[in-house]
Amino acid sequence: MDEQRLKKLLRDYKAGRLRGDALVAELRAGPYSDLGFAKVDHHRALRCGFPEVIFCQGKTPAQVRAIATRILSKSGRLLATRATTEAAAAILDVAPRAVHHETARCVSVGVRPAKAGPFVVVAAAGTSDLPVAEEARVAAEAWGVRVRTVVDVGVAGLHRLLAHVKLLMDASALVVVAGMEGALPSVVAGLVRRPVVAVPTSVGYGANFKGVTPLLAMMNSCAAGVSVVNIDNGFGGGYIAGMVVASLRTRR
Amino acid sequence: MDEQRLKKLLRDYKAGRLRGDALVAELRAGPYSDLGFAKVDHHRALRCGFPEVIFCQGKTPAQVRAIATRILSKSGRLLATRATTEAAAAILDVAPRAVHHETARCVSVGVRPAKAGPFVVVAAAGTSDLPVAEEARVAAEAWGVRVRTVVDVGVAGLHRLLAHVKLLMDASALVVVAGMEGALPSVVAGLVRRPVVAVPTSVGYGANFKGVTPLLAMMNSCAAGVSVVNIDNGFGGGYIAGMVVASLRTRR
Amino acid sequence: MDEQRLKKLLRDYKAGRLRGDALVAELRAGPYSDLGFAKVDHHRALRCGFPEVIFCQGKTPAQVRAIATRILSKSGRLLATRATTEAAAAILDVAPRAVHHETARCVSVGVRPAKAGPFVVVAAAGTSDLPVAEEARVAAEAWGVRVRTVVDVGVAGLHRLLAHVKLLMDASALVVVAGMEGALPSVVAGLVRRPVVAVPTSVGYGANFKGVTPLLAMMNSCAAGVSVVNIDNGFGGGYIAGMVVASLRTRR
Amino acid sequence: MDEQRLKKLLRDYKAGRLRGDALVAELRAGPYSDLGFAKVDHHRALRCGFPEVIFCQGKTPAQVRAIATRILSKSGRLLATRATTEAAAAILDVAPRAVHHETARCVSVGVRPAKAGPFVVVAAAGTSDLPVAEEARVAAEAWGVRVRTVVDVGVAGLHRLLAHVKLLMDASALVVVAGMEGALPSVVAGLVRRPVVAVPTSVGYGANFKGVTPLLAMMNSCAAGVSVVNIDNGFGGGYIAGMVVASLRTRR
Amino acid sequence: MDEQRLKKLLRDYKAGRLRGDALVAELRAGPYSDLGFAKVDHHRALRCGFPEVIFCQGKTPAQVRAIATRILSKSGRLLATRATTEAAAAILDVAPRAVHHETARCVSVGVRPAKAGPFVVVAAAGTSDLPVAEEARVAAEAWGVRVRTVVDVGVAGLHRLLAHVKLLMDASALVVVAGMEGALPSVVAGLVRRPVVAVPTSVGYGANFKGVTPLLAMMNSCAAGVSVVNIDNGFGGGYIAGMVVASLRTRR
Amino acid sequence: MDEQRLKKLLRDYKAGRLRGDALVAELRAGPYSDLGFAKVDHHRALRCGFPEVIFCQGKTPAQVRAIATRILSKSGRLLATRATTEAAAAILDVAPRAVHHETARCVSVGVRPAKAGPFVVVAAAGTSDLPVAEEARVAAEAWGVRVRTVVDVGVAGLHRLLAHVKLLMDASALVVVAGMEGALPSVVAGLVRRPVVAVPTSVGYGANFKGVTPLLAMMNSCAAGVSVVNIDNGFGGGYIAGMVVASLRTRR
Amino acid sequence: MDEQRLKKLLRDYKAGRLRGDALVAELRAGPYSDLGFAKVDHHRALRCGFPEVIFCQGKTPAQVRAIATRILSKSGRLLATRATTEAAAAILDVAPRAVHHETARCVSVGVRPAKAGPFVVVAAAGTSDLPVAEEARVAAEAWGVRVRTVVDVGVAGLHRLLAHVKLLMDASALVVVAGMEGALPSVVAGLVRRPVVAVPTSVGYGANFKGVTPLLAMMNSCAAGVSVVNIDNGFGGGYIAGMVVASLRTRR
Amino acid sequence: MDEQRLKKLLRDYKAGRLRGDALVAELRAGPYSDLGFAKVDHHRALRCGFPEVIFCQGKTPAQVRAIATRILSKSGRLLATRATTEAAAAILDVAPRAVHHETARCVSVGVRPAKAGPFVVVAAAGTSDLPVAEEARVAAEAWGVRVRTVVDVGVAGLHRLLAHVKLLMDASALVVVAGMEGALPSVVAGLVRRPVVAVPTSVGYGANFKGVTPLLAMMNSCAAGVSVVNIDNGFGGGYIAGMVVASLRTRR
Repeated sequence: MDEQRLKKLLRDYKAGRLRGDALVAELRAGPYSDLGFAKVDHHRALRCGFPEVIFCQGKTPAQVRAIATRILSKSGRLLATRATTEAAAAILDVAPRAVHHETARCVSVGVRPAKAGPFVVVAAAGTSDLPVAEEARVAAEAWGVRVRTVVDVGVAGLHRLLAHVKLLMDASALVVVAGMEGALPSVVAGLVRRPVVAVPTSVGYGANFKGVTPLLAMMNSCAAGVSVVNIDNGFGGGYIAGMVVASLRTRR
Repeated sequence: MDEQRLKKLLRDYKAGRLRGDALVAELRAGPYSDLGFAKVDHHRALRCGFPEVIFCQGKTPAQVRAIATRILSKSGRLLATRATTEAAAAILDVAPRAVHHETARCVSVGVRPAKAGPFVVVAAAGTSDLPVAEEARVAAEAWGVRVRTVVDVGVAGLHRLLAHVKLLMDASALVVVAGMEGALPSVVAGLVRRPVVAVPTSVGYGANFKGVTPLLAMMNSCAAGVSVVNIDNGFGGGYIAGMVVASLRTRR
Repeated sequence: MDEQRLKKLLRDYKAGRLRGDALVAELRAGPYSDLGFAKVDHHRALRCGFPEVIFCQGKTPAQVRAIATRILSKSGRLLATRATTEAAAAILDVAPRAVHHETARCVSVGVRPAKAGPFVVVAAAGTSDLPVAEEARVAAEAWGVRVRTVVDVGVAGLHRLLAHVKLLMDASALVVVAGMEGALPSVVAGLVRRPVVAVPTSVGYGANFKGVTPLLAMMNSCAAGVSVVNIDNGFGGGYIAGMVVASLRTRR
Repeated sequence: MDEQRLKKLLRDYKAGRLRGDALVAELRAGPYSDLGFAKVDHHRALRCGFPEVIFCQGKTPAQVRAIATRILSKSGRLLATRATTEAAAAILDVAPRAVHHETARCVSVGVRPAKAGPFVVVAAAGTSDLPVAEEARVAAEAWGVRVRTVVDVGVAGLHRLLAHVKLLMDASALVVVAGMEGALPSVVAGLVRRPVVAVPTSVGYGANFKGVTPLLAMMNSCAAGVSVVNIDNGFGGGYIAGMVVASLRTRR
Repeated sequence: MDEQRLKKLLRDYKAGRLRGDALVAELRAGPYSDLGFAKVDHHRALRCGFPEVIFCQGKTPAQVRAIATRILSKSGRLLATRATTEAAAAILDVAPRAVHHETARCVSVGVRPAKAGPFVVVAAAGTSDLPVAEEARVAAEAWGVRVRTVVDVGVAGLHRLLAHVKLLMDASALVVVAGMEGALPSVVAGLVRRPVVAVPTSVGYGANFKGVTPLLAMMNSCAAGVSVVNIDNGFGGGYIAGMVVASLRTRR
Repeated sequence: MDEQRLKKLLRDYKAGRLRGDALVAELRAGPYSDLGFAKVDHHRALRCGFPEVIFCQGKTPAQVRAIATRILSKSGRLLATRATTEAAAAILDVAPRAVHHETARCVSVGVRPAKAGPFVVVAAAGTSDLPVAEEARVAAEAWGVRVRTVVDVGVAGLHRLLAHVKLLMDASALVVVAGMEGALPSVVAGLVRRPVVAVPTSVGYGANFKGVTPLLAMMNSCAAGVSVVNIDNGFGGGYIAGMVVASLRTRR
Repeated sequence: MDEQRLKKLLRDYKAGRLRGDALVAELRAGPYSDLGFAKVDHHRALRCGFPEVIFCQGKTPAQVRAIATRILSKSGRLLATRATTEAAAAILDVAPRAVHHETARCVSVGVRPAKAGPFVVVAAAGTSDLPVAEEARVAAEAWGVRVRTVVDVGVAGLHRLLAHVKLLMDASALVVVAGMEGALPSVVAGLVRRPVVAVPTSVGYGANFKGVTPLLAMMNSCAAGVSVVNIDNGFGGGYIAGMVVASLRTRR
Repeated sequence: MDEQRLKKLLRDYKAGRLRGDALVAELRAGPYSDLGFAKVDHHRALRCGFPEVIFCQGKTPAQVRAIATRILSKSGRLLATRATTEAAAAILDVAPRAVHHETARCVSVGVRPAKAGPFVVVAAAGTSDLPVAEEARVAAEAWGVRVRTVVDVGVAGLHRLLAHVKLLMDASALVVVAGMEGALPSVVAGLVRRPVVAVPTSVGYGANFKGVTPLLAMMNSCAAGVSVVNIDNGFGGGYIAGMVVASLRTRR
């Protein structure tokens, strides 16, 4: 309920077109609409340029299909993450034009990233980090922004990273994905002057503790400009970087 | 060494104005200059609009004074964080126009935040989180951007938070500071559509583990758009949020 | 052994109907009966209105069937938790009127929750928390009290929660179930004035540590009135909330 | 803002006694009043029978005095926890009839626990747990209910506990305070049929980890009916137990 | 090499029956024999009354069979722990008189526990702890001592434990096995005056952390006389208790 | 069993109304008579040969003095642990014949360890472990048994340990005290055939975590016969070892 | 790019055989060649005597085969670690002379360890540590150095270890592999005067935490000269020890 | 006892100059002398070129002085670590030519590092890591080898590190010291082909956990050739690196 709607309700009430009880009911039923967050997921999607999202993990293919059908009945766009082959097939069944990003374990519908303009860089330390990096790419592209990806630029072979320095420096936001000791975000943030969202991955063994070590390392980065999301949360990293770049279009 | 300088060196060499050995030495000595990050802290500061920073913790007042003097000889701007009263006095002694932000434990020189335009919101859950929130404010303002602060809007009294919903929604980036169970960033991120940098604080006791609990909670936020920095790292949160808002000016 | 039985034994002894040795043996066999906790599970069940409980995890269907048979020979009521399909079938085999609560993984016999009167609210943050929430509902209903459930009211979409504020405020006790960052109990406890039993779930990934993060968050709630049970312990949460509401009938 | 006030505003508006803009402003300023949680802390205190609380830790005596003065200007009752000697003196200075509970580190004003009727039992395992137990007692009494305390009833000397079995069984709610291995709540909950709120304390050394061990032990209690609050959170335990007993008066 | 052998070597050397080089070689090759720990496992077994032990976990049935065959060629006694059905079959194949303790996952050969005399009590909190308790029993019996077992005497139903107080008090050493909150050893140690070896088990869920919680609780026991072995290490607990009771025979 | 009952039993016995055997049975069976075990600490001390113990930590000198006075009014023996200089002085004030064991931070009264017979060995890895080792010695001696101590026999210099092998092998029980990596108990247990009680100490730094590392190492000892007590719990280790050796006198 | 190549480029440029743009491009593309780490893995392998390595875990047999084929097209030597039977078969398919080290889960091609000269000792505490020890052996041999292995020399049977003291003392570098309590490196380092690389293994159960306990113990070794690699990282241990011994040949 | 001494003893015995009992006693008393590690610290020091070491932490100045006096009576060389100003003064008092390394908190006597030849590089990430780096330098120099130090080469400003690449590559062993996220060892190890001993420091805050984060990061280094010592253990790192370089002199 926006302010216009609220004023209209009051005018209707004053004019006798709406009974007091009905007005109270309206105000109760949608008390936060005037603040902008009623049915927020739906409104937000329309307004922000980000499609509605299905987190498939823990849902059956049938559930995924049902949710996808409902979303697509109201919107032309959709993003599904952590989709198994079966979940992806369920969406493709109801949305033939959907794209299945296999490595990213995602399905997108109606997503059209920009071909030019400011871009997100997704950098991954090793090839094993690729699924998380791809999830980040898909999430950032869902904002309609351009994404460039560089992979296998871990800190143990600096020359591989430094070969991409210009690309890194030209990015408007960066997602840096790393497992093992999680050192890449610090090195990258020292080279650029835009925000770095660090995504620790569960790649490693022993005292890696399934991603806890890179998470802690990233949290303690000696370089300013690094913030961190949950282990393997490529979606979260790409969402934030895409949001930042998308905002450059509106200058707000 | 920027690209111009590199090309000049090569022209000089080709023209016989520079010997091969000398050219090799130049290239060795400054191999990253042509990429733009030699003496990066200094250059970066000039270019980005962010002043040089002194992390005072673990430094003596004399050391702080010496570093501040050197920076101010080359630049009109400075930010010092985690400054004790003694460290602050040392800076004020050499820079009389410096501002001592007592609650934030910061000193700034030459920082002039914008009076209008897109702004950062710094929101703190409790009054005990104020020093960290203030450090975030000072850091964001050092980017030259406007900052609005709301304090004591913890989730146990939602009405206090909801009274500020419009302000939160109008922010271009948000820093959300919380100790205890660290729930505030999730609630805020659910209300807005811009990036939320969550700063866990060490406020709490017992199973709070000096900020580990809010750090973990923020890392697991069910709301998209939340990334996290280290415990009590108000500087880091404000730096990122300010950087995001500052980039709106350049649209890059 | 209740007081009546004890006094009868003593009269019988005095009257010569019971030998001293036999009396001693009786007292030994049930040495705490006069204190009220001999064969306590059985007596307690009779007295409190709570049926005997089988924790099926780690038990074979045959063992579950045997225990259920024995309990039902003495009592008309039974609750089995963490029941696999096989365990449930074993109980239904010997108790055709048993109810299998599939989502809750429970089986109940002879449980009749009140249709009116003070009630427990079970609130769950996400749909993945539903099995734990349902276990809580079944446990609370086993006290014979009324239960109302609200699901998918996580803090990232406050409007969904606030739509149920009146229900929450009218509850006489609440069970709040959440995984991820575990923020819901704090928000709910800030809205109501009755006890909130928080149940962390293992829903989440990465730095969630299978429920440790919401457990810690709930333990550090900034709202008074929140206490916490073990991860995924829906039974524990429902048991306590049901016990509190049941006691309102007796005013003791 | 309650429903009556809302309807009055609407009538005034309809009758032309209130302008539309003014009505909108009223609704914005107090948008949650009709739900009952505007200025909730104040209202809640009036309604529930629980005084307003000052958590003194991290506040200066001057701040404590100022807050106390403001509360007492609106209410005759007050509870201050974690009060140092200086903080307590600051309150006594403005409220001469205040009671300083030294062991509990609390100050209360206007609290009058019942002399009879259903009661809370606060049981502490060791004498070192006494400050936490006392804080629980004061918090429970602030609900106006009767509290009985038993101390030094640790499980290594069962006879000391069993001497109080009747008292434990007659309680309407129990707070059980223990450090070390935290076993007491399990033993007590096995003897009674009312809710046990377990409070782990930081009493212990080495692998006790300042209360983490009893917290975990209590969380894993093999007895139903035990829920847990944060380490050393006597206030939290007493608040919940007192709330439960207070509700017996209203049967809701 | 015992002292007799050493003196003989020296006499041989002095008498010229052994060359200096040969003597040095002998002393080098078996430098610790005279201290009693050469081929210590074998000697120790002969001397102490405890059979040689095969820890089957991580060994193939063929390996187990080979080791068992070699041991039995030199000794009439054997104990195998953590034996799968296949490993047990492999031993029974080469030792038809072997006893397979299925619940304990052990196989023993030639073990004859005493029928009378001082005894070990193995007490287990719950039925799920039975495999660990049985392993403890078999290990203690391998010392040739008598063992009495009591099961399902957890602290949430004290009457069950107290019914066995005399048995507990008459034991010469006790193994107390518990998962969940691990409170039983504290309660038992408060009732007896002989050593209690506590064995935490991995029985539990959530914040039990596969036995870490009872391990910590036992480590912090408020009762003197409790020492702890590794999680699920029934063998270790029974070994120590049996060793203590076996030593009563020799009074050394 | 209260005093009246005890006196009646004794009168009956004296008058021939009760046989000696029956009286013994009553006395054994009935430390728990009225509830089974009133004043158990006192009886236990009398019966077991172990004096009453004051854990001074967290008690004022005045409290220690008061408790000591009360104990000494009923008994000639006393042990105080974790005694500061002030606490020790308080005891010496009321018990001039008390012995202050400064390194052990203990005070004992009336303790007379045997000069010969089976003995406890207390072995400490480093000189920094000495206070804990000494506490263990004093606790073991309080059982009236002989104790031999060896210090600075850490595993990094095996020759120092092996020089004491005979002493270790002749011990009837051993307390092995170590910080750092906590390896000593494993090495010792491999050399002897009597129980080893391992006491981890908080000696170390960094990843030692104040004794957690040696605690875990000891818990995972590859040698059978090792059980573990809490970090720095020299009292606990000495108590158990002394108890084992003391029991050799009674063969029970 | 080595210095020769760089000078040639410059000469070509000066001579007009290379355009300025092309030279800039070359310098950008390979900016670190003159420092010696361009395509470093390849160069390094040629120079150091260590073959290129494939970490097979997480790669399909087809990927392993492709990488192996590419490496072998440029080099006669190869090491593959963590190779499943299928991965090993894939390599053997393209390199018939490859050696499959089954226990070590490695495949090597063209590795010829020295038959004499300084050597590495790989010592393993238990037979379960053998796979990790064998991986260490293969990695050290890939440096072309001699390796001697001793297994089952755990600290609980010192005589087994001491029988090998001369071998240990003659080693030029040592890899010590242990699970459980991880005590072996401390004991070995106390006997030798060359570097000991400690490799914790995940062998153990319960409070071993899959190798965390031996890792911590090794990190806290009381013996100087011990450094530690990740849990089960036999490759890392053997690589370092082999590198140290290989450097003795070049005296640099 | 070396082999010569052993043979002499045997000759004396054969010649009748030594009785059998005396020989047995000699062999018992010094059973490991013939293996070369009796009084190993002393012998080792003489043989290896490394002076005896006093770990001052936890020792009084008087104790330090006494130990230093005893060592210097037998040897011209000494190293004292973790020396307070008072401990340093105590040594200087008895050894006027001692050198007090203030930043390193060390005192050395008679240490003369080589002026040329293979060298150790000690690299520190930040200026706060300097004390640990200096301790490493002093420890390495105590082996008589040359040490080069580079400080403030953290990964957030790669250009600072890369300016020293040649020095790093020429080192024969490296000690890399870092706090915060501990990324430096990975980057360095990727640039060199000699062993890197990583030393985590406790520099950092919040989720650094006093050095645990860099320790874990280093343990998970993606670069081969990195091993790790305890937090702040500069001595350990320098000792190993110095030992490796010292061995290049002897080629063994």
